[in-house]
Amino acid sequence: MAELLRISDPNDPRVAVFRDIRERDLVRDGGFIAEGTVVVDGLVRSRFFRPERLLVLENRVAGLADLLAALPPDVPVLVAGRNVIDAVAGFPMHRGVLAHGVARVARPGAEDLATRLAGLAETGGIVVVAVGIANHDNIGAIFRNAAAFGAGLAILDETSCDPLYRKALRVSAGAVLHLPFLRAEPLAALAALTQAGFSAFALSPSGDPDLAALDRAGPAALFLGTEGEGLPLELMAAMRRLRIDMVPGFDSLNVATSAAIALQRLYSARRTGTSA
Amino acid sequence: MAELLRISDPNDPRVAVFRDIRERDLVRDGGFIAEGTVVVDGLVRSRFFRPERLLVLENRVAGLADLLAALPPDVPVLVAGRNVIDAVAGFPMHRGVLAHGVARVARPGAEDLATRLAGLAETGGIVVVAVGIANHDNIGAIFRNAAAFGAGLAILDETSCDPLYRKALRVSAGAVLHLPFLRAEPLAALAALTQAGFSAFALSPSGDPDLAALDRAGPAALFLGTEGEGLPLELMAAMRRLRIDMVPGFDSLNVATSAAIALQRLYSARRTGTSA
Repeated sequence: MAELLRISDPNDPRVAVFRDIRERDLVRDGGFIAEGTVVVDGLVRSRFFRPERLLVLENRVAGLADLLAALPPDVPVLVAGRNVIDAVAGFPMHRGVLAHGVARVARPGAEDLATRLAGLAETGGIVVVAVGIANHDNIGAIFRNAAAFGAGLAILDETSCDPLYRKALRVSAGAVLHLPFLRAEPLAALAALTQAGFSAFALSPSGDPDLAALDRAGPAALFLGTEGEGLPLELMAAMRRLRIDMVPGFDSLNVATSAAIALQRLYSARRTGTSA
Repeated sequence: MAELLRISDPNDPRVAVFRDIRERDLVRDGGFIAEGTVVVDGLVRSRFFRPERLLVLENRVAGLADLLAALPPDVPVLVAGRNVIDAVAGFPMHRGVLAHGVARVARPGAEDLATRLAGLAETGGIVVVAVGIANHDNIGAIFRNAAAFGAGLAILDETSCDPLYRKALRVSAGAVLHLPFLRAEPLAALAALTQAGFSAFALSPSGDPDLAALDRAGPAALFLGTEGEGLPLELMAAMRRLRIDMVPGFDSLNVATSAAIALQRLYSARRTGTSA
C-alpha cells in the first residue's frame, strides 16, 4: 500500500488536479475525477482506466482500508482534514474520497468500430448508441443500465456529454469505467452495425408496441435519443421503431429508464431463450 | 385569465411563499412549490391539487400564454424580472415559472386504504408501495414510472420522503399531482392489500428470476425498498420475491428503474394478455 501523504495547504501543488472540481466540470490533464467509494473502487478494478492519485478525508482512511490496500504502491494517497478538502474541491465534499483517473490503455475511436462490432456480433452482443444525450444524469444512468444488462459497447455521438465527467461517473455507479465506449457519427455507426449483422432498434412513441421483437433479436443495437426531440428522422427511418406501451397521455419515461426496459428484454432473452 | 401583478421588491409579502425555496425544502403553508412548465401545467390540470398563485419571469409571460389562459381567474399571477425572482427564490431560477400549490380536496390517509384498494382490485389495479425511499430523485422517478404504467395508488411509509417536495415533483414530471398517494405502515398496508385480493411482489437479488409471474398477476402491489438495504426482512418474507436478471457482479439498478421494468410487465400484460 502507498504511503499516506498529509496535505495541510489547499494550495499544495500535489492536490492541484482536484481543485474546484464542481466549477471546472471537464476532463483535465488527460484524466477525470472519480468521486465516492463505489466509483473509486471501480476505478481501481477497471481494465481500461487507473487511478493516478487519491485524495481522502482523514476520518475516512480507516474505513477505506480495503480500497487503499488494493492500490498499486506507486499511487499517492493524499490525506487532508475537512477544511482543507472542502477548500480544494470548492464545495463541501461529503463523499470523502476523490481520485484522479487516467486511461490505462489507448482509448478506442471510430476507427476501431468495425473490429469491435465484429467481435461482439459473434457473441450475440448488445450495443447502445447515445445520440444527443447532453445530460450527465442520463448518460450515467444509461451506462449503469447498459452494464447491468450486458451491453458490450456504447457508441456516443459528438453531441452526447462526456461519461467520464464526475457526476455521470457517479450516477453510472462506475459502469463507465467498465463498459467500453467510443465516439462515432450515428449514421456511420448504423452502417457499421448493419454491416456487422446487428439489428438496430429505436424507441419511439410512434413505434410498434411489440417489445417481443427484442426477444427474437440476434446482435442488437439500441439507439437512444433525447427525451424531447428523439432521434433525428433520417436515423429513425433507417431502423426498427419500438414503442413501450404506457398510459395514453402520459407518454413520458426517462430515456435511461426506457433503455433499461428494452435492455432487460434483450438480456433476458439471451439468457433464457424467452422473455422472462 | 388573471390580471398580471408586477412585483419589483423581493420582500413584497405577495411573494413570501416563494422565498428561499431551495433552503427551505419542505412543504409550507399547507402547500408546496411547483417549478417549471411541465409541473405547473400538471398542477393546473390536477384533480387533487390546484395552484394558489404563480410567480413568472417577465420574459416568459408570452411563452406561457396557454398555461396562463387555463388558470382560474382568481389565481394571482405575479410577474418579476430576473433579479427580483432570483432574490426571492434564493438561487438563479432558470425555469421561469413557480407555483404555490395546495390540495383541492381532502388528502387520503391510512384510514382510506381499504376503500381505495377495494375499488382498485375490481379493475385489476396496480399499487406501488415505497418503503424507506428517502431520496427525492428516486421518489419522483418512482411516481413518474408508476403513472406511466397505470398504477392507481402509491402507498408511502413514514420514512419515505415527501413526493410534493419541489425536486421530487419535478423529477416525477408532475406525476405526483395525478397519482393518488397516502401514508401507511408497510405491514398494515400488506395486510390490507392481501385482504383486498392483491398479490404482493418485492424485487430482490435473492428472488426468483421469473418476471413472467407479473404477467399472470391479477391486482398487484409492488413493494420498493432502498437500494442499499432493501425491504425489511419481515416484509420480504411475507411476499413473492422476484429478481431482475442481470450481469452477475453488477447487481445494481436504480430502484425506480427496477420498478419501471416490473411495472411495464404488469401494465403490458393487462393490455395484451401477454408479456409483449
